[in-house]
Amino acid sequence: MGSFKGHALPGSFFLVAGLWWTGKHSLWHVTRRNKNLGSGRVASRASQRRLELIESSIVVFFSFVGILAEQFADGPRLQLYNAAEKHWEDVMNWQHSTMYLFFGLAGIVSLIVHTTDVAPLALDRLMLAVAFFNEGGLRIRLPLYTHTYSILAGFLFLYHLHGRTMLDVHVHQLLLYAVFGSAAVAFLEVFHRGNILMEMLRCTLTMLQGSWFWQVNLKTYKKKVVEHAVTTSSVSAHWPQIGFVLYPPHGPEWDLKDHNNMMFITMCYSWHLAFALLAVSMVYCTVSWLKRTPPMEMGLLKPREREPESEDEIL
Amino acid sequence: MGSFKGHALPGSFFLVAGLWWTGKHSLWHVTRRNKNLGSGRVASRASQRRLELIESSIVVFFSFVGILAEQFADGPRLQLYNAAEKHWEDVMNWQHSTMYLFFGLAGIVSLIVHTTDVAPLALDRLMLAVAFFNEGGLRIRLPLYTHTYSILAGFLFLYHLHGRTMLDVHVHQLLLYAVFGSAAVAFLEVFHRGNILMEMLRCTLTMLQGSWFWQVNLKTYKKKVVEHAVTTSSVSAHWPQIGFVLYPPHGPEWDLKDHNNMMFITMCYSWHLAFALLAVSMVYCTVSWLKRTPPMEMGLLKPREREPESEDEIL
Amino acid sequence: MGSFKGHALPGSFFLVAGLWWTGKHSLWHVTRRNKNLGSGRVASRASQRRLELIESSIVVFFSFVGILAEQFADGPRLQLYNAAEKHWEDVMNWQHSTMYLFFGLAGIVSLIVHTTDVAPLALDRLMLAVAFFNEGGLRIRLPLYTHTYSILAGFLFLYHLHGRTMLDVHVHQLLLYAVFGSAAVAFLEVFHRGNILMEMLRCTLTMLQGSWFWQVNLKTYKKKVVEHAVTTSSVSAHWPQIGFVLYPPHGPEWDLKDHNNMMFITMCYSWHLAFALLAVSMVYCTVSWLKRTPPMEMGLLKPREREPESEDEIL
Amino acid sequence: MGSFKGHALPGSFFLVAGLWWTGKHSLWHVTRRNKNLGSGRVASRASQRRLELIESSIVVFFSFVGILAEQFADGPRLQLYNAAEKHWEDVMNWQHSTMYLFFGLAGIVSLIVHTTDVAPLALDRLMLAVAFFNEGGLRIRLPLYTHTYSILAGFLFLYHLHGRTMLDVHVHQLLLYAVFGSAAVAFLEVFHRGNILMEMLRCTLTMLQGSWFWQVNLKTYKKKVVEHAVTTSSVSAHWPQIGFVLYPPHGPEWDLKDHNNMMFITMCYSWHLAFALLAVSMVYCTVSWLKRTPPMEMGLLKPREREPESEDEIL
Repeated sequence: MGSFKGHALPGSFFLVAGLWWTGKHSLWHVTRRNKNLGSGRVASRASQRRLELIESSIVVFFSFVGILAEQFADGPRLQLYNAAEKHWEDVMNWQHSTMYLFFGLAGIVSLIVHTTDVAPLALDRLMLAVAFFNEGGLRIRLPLYTHTYSILAGFLFLYHLHGRTMLDVHVHQLLLYAVFGSAAVAFLEVFHRGNILMEMLRCTLTMLQGSWFWQVNLKTYKKKVVEHAVTTSSVSAHWPQIGFVLYPPHGPEWDLKDHNNMMFITMCYSWHLAFALLAVSMVYCTVSWLKRTPPMEMGLLKPREREPESEDEIL
Repeated sequence: MGSFKGHALPGSFFLVAGLWWTGKHSLWHVTRRNKNLGSGRVASRASQRRLELIESSIVVFFSFVGILAEQFADGPRLQLYNAAEKHWEDVMNWQHSTMYLFFGLAGIVSLIVHTTDVAPLALDRLMLAVAFFNEGGLRIRLPLYTHTYSILAGFLFLYHLHGRTMLDVHVHQLLLYAVFGSAAVAFLEVFHRGNILMEMLRCTLTMLQGSWFWQVNLKTYKKKVVEHAVTTSSVSAHWPQIGFVLYPPHGPEWDLKDHNNMMFITMCYSWHLAFALLAVSMVYCTVSWLKRTPPMEMGLLKPREREPESEDEIL
Repeated sequence: MGSFKGHALPGSFFLVAGLWWTGKHSLWHVTRRNKNLGSGRVASRASQRRLELIESSIVVFFSFVGILAEQFADGPRLQLYNAAEKHWEDVMNWQHSTMYLFFGLAGIVSLIVHTTDVAPLALDRLMLAVAFFNEGGLRIRLPLYTHTYSILAGFLFLYHLHGRTMLDVHVHQLLLYAVFGSAAVAFLEVFHRGNILMEMLRCTLTMLQGSWFWQVNLKTYKKKVVEHAVTTSSVSAHWPQIGFVLYPPHGPEWDLKDHNNMMFITMCYSWHLAFALLAVSMVYCTVSWLKRTPPMEMGLLKPREREPESEDEIL
Repeated sequence: MGSFKGHALPGSFFLVAGLWWTGKHSLWHVTRRNKNLGSGRVASRASQRRLELIESSIVVFFSFVGILAEQFADGPRLQLYNAAEKHWEDVMNWQHSTMYLFFGLAGIVSLIVHTTDVAPLALDRLMLAVAFFNEGGLRIRLPLYTHTYSILAGFLFLYHLHGRTMLDVHVHQLLLYAVFGSAAVAFLEVFHRGNILMEMLRCTLTMLQGSWFWQVNLKTYKKKVVEHAVTTSSVSAHWPQIGFVLYPPHGPEWDLKDHNNMMFITMCYSWHLAFALLAVSMVYCTVSWLKRTPPMEMGLLKPREREPESEDEIL
């Protein structure tokens, strides 16, 4: 359950968020492009704001639910330190609560920005970047502190670091590329707001994060079920749907010291990225197709519309 | 006393600076926004310059005081090398003096930039960035050189690196994110001067640095008082005011090899960040509320005012 | 053969791509400059688009061929996991297939972008950046995982890391600078499209990557032939054509623990860079010379044309 | 002699280059500012070009001299590999030649850019950035490869790494900040050409590099003279002129394992930076003062002139 809360829930959250954002930004981009042909401007802006408010409310609501779930469903119930047994009370749950807190803050800020006039619009992207950076900073613990530190500190000989630990570190390191990538793109959007490419890139990275969470979760889940079975075999348990049958379902025993596992995981991450790119482009194309303007007008406008983009930076 | 000079003083300095900057930039942003409705421009510009001069003078004054305090209050009294005993005289104090020196230089440059016409305005931000980079570069010593080097060099077995040292390194590493973050944002402001979001981000990071200094200071202070008591317990000595009672005041003995401490500290840093964000936004809202224009006019201007920001980067 | 597929093929691919891009971008830059003097605009834009389509088709075709070659010529034949022998089936070939896949995707996206109107033009550069980042991420395995990890993990004493391994790591690390450099420049081009300097820089880095591949390949090839001969001697086997006779063809035995080898390799990389810069500038000059406008008109236009560039960023 | 060629020569070169650039850019900035009041434009542009040509010619000339000096004065005389004794012939000299080669290329490119019309102006900054990156990449060898690699590889126990080596690594690491800083700023100038702040920052970092070279050189020089004397004492041999008497001239014996040395060196680097900032600002002020316009006109223009800078980025 803890692992489900920690991996599958945020995984689904990010997958849905990525898909939702793709749809939203695609819709607005297409609307903006069509607007150049005329049509009602004020109406569209009002509906945009309404959409943002709904989205922000949902984010705030689910962040709140997430915090409650982490705290009360098998969690520390707002107690931070166990004075009796002298140890921290479920630090992991507290960390997840903190991550939800920052996404909740981003939601609240987005609500304020889109209802009142008090702050510039770009603040919602800045807070999103902060929330992603915060998530990455808190998640960095696993790859950096647990393992690398123990390697450096020479605890190696105590903990007997072996293939499986290195795989674990590697899997989480890959996750961080998606998290910090999302943060960096959201930060860039503060300066380049409305750039459809940056928006789509952020959606892709968010979906990549989401699907990688599911990957990790499946691995962890299996680890609990078959304690002594070699965990890495379950790494790819949900791949049949991508079209490859990797291994017989009985769980073959892998050579855990095999460096190839690491190479395979890296490659698998690339495939997740390709999948996310595909999903984003399919949503974008669908939206474009649904909201298309009459083709002949489009054709007439094409050369003019392309000008500013292809020549604006000529030295 | 040394620790107080090294941690609590700069901590307070950065907290005050962060709050002051938040107020200043908020005020100007709101004034600028209101100006679009008319009202006296030249007067406001003159008062802005006066405010900058006062701020710069105070920075220069306190930097000078800081250098004097480091040098003469329990310091090396401008003597760098002790030839008799063949060792450096209080290198730590000299380093702090150097940090003050660069902030003093930034203050002097700001004075010159705002009184004369000799250099471009953005120079004050560039010097601020240099001062922050310099501070970060000098402070990096603790996490990188003292400990990591000794780890790498295998002195590990000599110094017997254990949980407490790793916590110390980690606490200072977190500090550096705030310092270098401030430096990077100040550098960005050279190119994006007057961007209220970057200004607020810099204020947030400066306050984060300040409050983290207090955290570190409390820890260090307690360490001196109760030498053999487990220091990490005092890490969070001032948290009751945030609303959590972490542990009984008698100072429980923690398991220092417990990896959870590290995770807790990271999370605690996130809370400091949330607190800084809250403080900055509260100051901003207060200023906005105090200097607000009549609401009905505001409402009328809203749609037009938003235009350039939300659409200027459309591809 | 495997090494040929893995090194010489992509090496030639990148060399050709670098040269081709240099020619293409030079041509367009010169055309654009001449256009300011008048002449037919629409015609040129149509031929530009045709050229892009041909290029993209070729990229897609060769990516497909590359995947097939990796899979079926001495490869895993689309089988990922060998359940019988319980190991991954030729992970290296799968990784190379994945790299080709992303370059193929970039080609397909470029085709779509230049035939339809559905996405912004800059998307082709973004996908190119993604393909380069993906390549770098997959190639990072050798320097980072195989060797550095084993160093950190203390396997050092097992694998007996010596001079040759360190050289191998270093050679691949240098490759990554070119790969990630190309990715970063392509990403910059999303925002600064049509900047001839960034285009030429990307071409240079791509050619650098290509020629370095040949370097690595020659080394690897010789390693197979003369197993016990000291491999580093063959590192520079194709240098006679640059004008230096490095060593007698009989393959002298080097002192592999000699740190100078590493220094030499680094310097050799600099020479490859100088060579790539030279090639790019020669192609650019040739194209400029072939498409030059009558010189007297040029001279007249010179002062005016330079204005915007040299003064547009004055503070 | 070798050390003099490797440290004192480039040190003086960078010091002179930094000062020269400061003067040149200051002059142009002031001229540009004054030009807004009227006066002859074409004349100034022609003299600017002439100045650039002279500068580029000098750079090319000294690069050529540098290569010759490295090769023939106590160098490898264009012989790369010593087949008889089976070792590289003076790799260090070859590396220095390569560095000169890239600065020479930058000079040639600058010549071409300012005489002909074939390439965009910003190419000179790009080549300068490449030359600096190349220098940094080649110099990185000392901190990274010689020492850190040997630490990681556990040769530690063989070479008996001690305080002095760590100091050496640290001193060269600090150098690299200046080198890569210059490279990054030159790259930024490709996009923000004519930004006086970036130009001054590059000048500062170039001078910092130059003065740090002298620091390192003095250290190395003394090392040769007094082989067994503790080298670090000579680190600061030229500081009396800054006003501190660090130690008696007889060379006290330092405790090399003292971590304070490292802290001192870092601080000393900050002082070099402060010195470089001072030098640059003094040159700038002198030029501004010499080329000043009549003060009353200046005063009248002040408010208008400041506008674009302080408000152009308002969100």
